[in-house]
Amino acid sequence: MIHAGFVQYHVHFGDWDANARAAEAGIRACEGADLLVLPELAFSGYDFLDRDEVRSLAEDPASGPTATMLRELAAALNVTLVAGYAEAAAGGCCNSAMLVTPQGAVHNYRKLHLFNREKELFLPGDGVPPVFETPAGRIGVMICFDWFFPETARCLALKGAQIVAHPSNLVLPWCQQAMFARSVENHVFSITANRIGTEDRAGRSLTFTGGSQLLDCSGQCLARAALDAPAQAIVALDPAEADNKVIAGTNHLFEERRPAMYDAL
Amino acid sequence: MIHAGFVQYHVHFGDWDANARAAEAGIRACEGADLLVLPELAFSGYDFLDRDEVRSLAEDPASGPTATMLRELAAALNVTLVAGYAEAAAGGCCNSAMLVTPQGAVHNYRKLHLFNREKELFLPGDGVPPVFETPAGRIGVMICFDWFFPETARCLALKGAQIVAHPSNLVLPWCQQAMFARSVENHVFSITANRIGTEDRAGRSLTFTGGSQLLDCSGQCLARAALDAPAQAIVALDPAEADNKVIAGTNHLFEERRPAMYDAL
Repeated sequence: MIHAGFVQYHVHFGDWDANARAAEAGIRACEGADLLVLPELAFSGYDFLDRDEVRSLAEDPASGPTATMLRELAAALNVTLVAGYAEAAAGGCCNSAMLVTPQGAVHNYRKLHLFNREKELFLPGDGVPPVFETPAGRIGVMICFDWFFPETARCLALKGAQIVAHPSNLVLPWCQQAMFARSVENHVFSITANRIGTEDRAGRSLTFTGGSQLLDCSGQCLARAALDAPAQAIVALDPAEADNKVIAGTNHLFEERRPAMYDAL
Repeated sequence: MIHAGFVQYHVHFGDWDANARAAEAGIRACEGADLLVLPELAFSGYDFLDRDEVRSLAEDPASGPTATMLRELAAALNVTLVAGYAEAAAGGCCNSAMLVTPQGAVHNYRKLHLFNREKELFLPGDGVPPVFETPAGRIGVMICFDWFFPETARCLALKGAQIVAHPSNLVLPWCQQAMFARSVENHVFSITANRIGTEDRAGRSLTFTGGSQLLDCSGQCLARAALDAPAQAIVALDPAEADNKVIAGTNHLFEERRPAMYDAL
């Protein structure tokens, strides 16, 4: 068994110090956690004015302040951490998530499906949905709007993910309900870590919907956060439950796929 | 606008006459309907003892009593009908659905993903998920357990289905909730027509969960039946709503798929 969960907080635009304090407080409040997921863009804020502003708040995935802090916390608390951040990459910036192990490994994933204005601000991801071996199990990573495309979680699960870690900045009303299907259809745990708060920038007002949640392989909700307050939660779970893809006694969810018939994918 | 809906009833094992009466009564109660979906195996019952029993209740998709009756009703009432039935095929029987238009066309689909004991009783489907042009719009057909595999509805939607017609004999608790994701992720209407009643055969007892439902392209439930009583419902909807795959103003759900990155499908 491991203990896994999420940290939900109010991300303040452009204030790395405040965001890092909120993240660290939430992480430290989850004593005994083996895996914690934080929101998307959890240290910069979300609604950038333009690419220059993204660049001004973007970080190096290995040596930036977020990587440095998460590596220290992961080692000190013996916890694997997944968090979204703005990545300074070659030729632009990416909406990325890093996975940091207690041993100091830092893995990176760049969001494949960019939402709305993100397309003007970020380079789209250039890699396949990744699954990482960690002390907390095999963790697949996808970011926010990636959930809308069932292919993302499907690929993660087919590649062996036991837990889908899902840093998010949700503003639409559908994800929390739809993640039920992502867990059930793939028989995986899923952890959606959302943020709260409102950003008012350039005449736009975006309110993030909280409601972070951890679902088991049957879609049952083991933990859910409030919609508008900081929260963290951890639950005990056995990642190996996700390895059994047999339901109803005889149906293997992956072996009984019919790829030759999926003509339009 | 069209009027579309479902007919939910108690299917009595092996009693074609009683089942046909229930089906016809439900269909006639939906006056003005353009599209109606009936359950899976809606004329035979579900829990066959063996292949011989399936064969004894299976029908020809063109000339069997179910096709004959549905063709007459479709023409008389000017309605497109989708219903599950046991199909007598070459080399065995299939768990199939027929789609019958008011003009007399009869299309057929053989279930791709067989559930539990169905694997001992039926041949698996040998065709891709089909989309049919009808006077009620472009209708994609899948049967019951096909829902569990997101590839099925995805293929239907990518091939232009506006409405997913989903005859079902549900015994597990997940489908009705998960169909929310099928409608949202594909921006299509979905009509799950389930049956009710219990079958006690050979020491097995199967209870079907009713709760037939019609969801719009945003997953909103426009009609839902009771869990344990016969029911029918029709609602007005515009199938063309499903043709607009743009959400949040700028995201095209299909054009922004990243097939080159879906390495495990």
